[in-house]
Amino acid sequence: MNQSHSIVGTHATILIADLRGFSTLMESVPSTLMVDLLNRFFGLMAKIVKRHGGMIDKLMGDAIMAVFGVPNRRPDDLIRALNCAVEMQLGMIDLSHRNERQGEPRLYAGIALSTGDVMAGSFGSEVYNEYTVIGSPVNLASRIESYAMRGQILLSEATYRAAGDAIQIGTVHEVQVKGRASPVMLYELKAVTQPHLLRVPMVEVRKTPRVLVDFPAVFQRVEDKRVLPERIVGQVQDIGYFGLCVDLPVALPPYSEVMMSMAPEFGLDSQVEVYARVLRSRPHQDRFRTNLQFTNIDTPGHRRIKHYVDHILWGN
Amino acid sequence: MNQSHSIVGTHATILIADLRGFSTLMESVPSTLMVDLLNRFFGLMAKIVKRHGGMIDKLMGDAIMAVFGVPNRRPDDLIRALNCAVEMQLGMIDLSHRNERQGEPRLYAGIALSTGDVMAGSFGSEVYNEYTVIGSPVNLASRIESYAMRGQILLSEATYRAAGDAIQIGTVHEVQVKGRASPVMLYELKAVTQPHLLRVPMVEVRKTPRVLVDFPAVFQRVEDKRVLPERIVGQVQDIGYFGLCVDLPVALPPYSEVMMSMAPEFGLDSQVEVYARVLRSRPHQDRFRTNLQFTNIDTPGHRRIKHYVDHILWGN
Repeated sequence: MNQSHSIVGTHATILIADLRGFSTLMESVPSTLMVDLLNRFFGLMAKIVKRHGGMIDKLMGDAIMAVFGVPNRRPDDLIRALNCAVEMQLGMIDLSHRNERQGEPRLYAGIALSTGDVMAGSFGSEVYNEYTVIGSPVNLASRIESYAMRGQILLSEATYRAAGDAIQIGTVHEVQVKGRASPVMLYELKAVTQPHLLRVPMVEVRKTPRVLVDFPAVFQRVEDKRVLPERIVGQVQDIGYFGLCVDLPVALPPYSEVMMSMAPEFGLDSQVEVYARVLRSRPHQDRFRTNLQFTNIDTPGHRRIKHYVDHILWGN
Repeated sequence: MNQSHSIVGTHATILIADLRGFSTLMESVPSTLMVDLLNRFFGLMAKIVKRHGGMIDKLMGDAIMAVFGVPNRRPDDLIRALNCAVEMQLGMIDLSHRNERQGEPRLYAGIALSTGDVMAGSFGSEVYNEYTVIGSPVNLASRIESYAMRGQILLSEATYRAAGDAIQIGTVHEVQVKGRASPVMLYELKAVTQPHLLRVPMVEVRKTPRVLVDFPAVFQRVEDKRVLPERIVGQVQDIGYFGLCVDLPVALPPYSEVMMSMAPEFGLDSQVEVYARVLRSRPHQDRFRTNLQFTNIDTPGHRRIKHYVDHILWGN
């Protein structure tokens, strides 16, 4: 959009797709590979957005934002946005397989959709302006996106309601986000049924083996991308390639994030950190049994865990 | 930048200026005023960036990102970036005064600067590409930005070191951000000394009167833009237009964020929330005396506080 568009109120669906754990991955890969990985991701996402008639709004670090319904509204904006999201996740599986065959890191995206009234047009001034959309549905999409795990598509309540029977959903979570007095519901998209049934592919997270262990590890909460100083010591019960189960002295809210510091049990000379998100936490004896999913994979810390699991499983 | 630029490694300073508390403000102002306020902010920032020879990278919601050193490096990139940041804060004071005279909300920006090696060029594919910079200094700028309070300019360690005696700094804070094993130091910019002495203007936060009070209030931590369910009851000791002092049963880390729910003491029919950031927390008797700065001003919740303070001060 090179010409200036006046700003109008309209209705749109915002889609944000973000690479999970890429900023940590970035620290451990050469910059040429980083650029290749990002361009493959952006290239694939942009192609799928265009095919579904969405407008690509911007790239933001390792995320891409698209909008359905601007500059012109169409009756099937929402259905196209939903299909776009599912095809993005299908595309990510192919992309990761191709990367893996070349010995390169797999990439996983988290996707958020939010629908509602926005202001759309050229923001800024004569000196500099950008065609974009602004409003609470945009902020909400960005907040929902931070909750999406690898391979997941999360919908806002407005998107869920507007989609009606055109979708099938999985788990529903209630979270409280900043700037909203009442809790926000997040709906996990499982499939779109229009124009054809299209299922969100399962990410292999829960399929890999886990090994029973019993060792302490230190956890620190991550708040607003900051690691809090308080150290929570937990007893790890089982561990796999993509997550672990730990007994903690405190209950952590679902989707909250922690940094785990691995101890010498992993045969380390220096300490390595791994980030993880809480799947669930339930009372167990006098503690809280907590399931965590690693958020940064293919990093040095994560590879150490994989080696450890392999070592126990296969003794090598 | 309309033609495609190949991606090269280079050195640059990233500047992010973000409106403090705008997403909450947005919920309470008409959308035409919201658009006007944003365009005034973006227009002013863009003019200052251009004047200092920076490249405007993108608008992101209520933030603007600029880069000094791309597409071409110049020896004074950093000095120009620093001067740009100070003039932005000077410009925000004028802008707020003009807004206030028209009965419109004041606007405050937080600014972050980060310097280092980035990849710069056209990211994406033929389908869609954008000239931008990617790399850890960009992520770091975005994380530092979230710590900046109203009127503040925070520098990364690399920016601080590269600036040498061209700057004067205020407080230094150590924080631990996600994706970094070691703590990150944040340097508050007070003045740039080259080419001329240019001071960062003081925001009036600490100048307004405070009233001594003694009532309970409920606090909830805000993590990664989410409000945590746990309710912390504190006893408010004094309160002003822009902050309060409260005794809490727990120590909260500096810069961490809380949501405060105001009680019927404020003469409310419905409950109103106010967001605040921790300035400091120190042991006091068996509790922690905590100084908070409100992050969202000119919102219904904040106006209620202002009325309450005025009522005690002036009895009206």
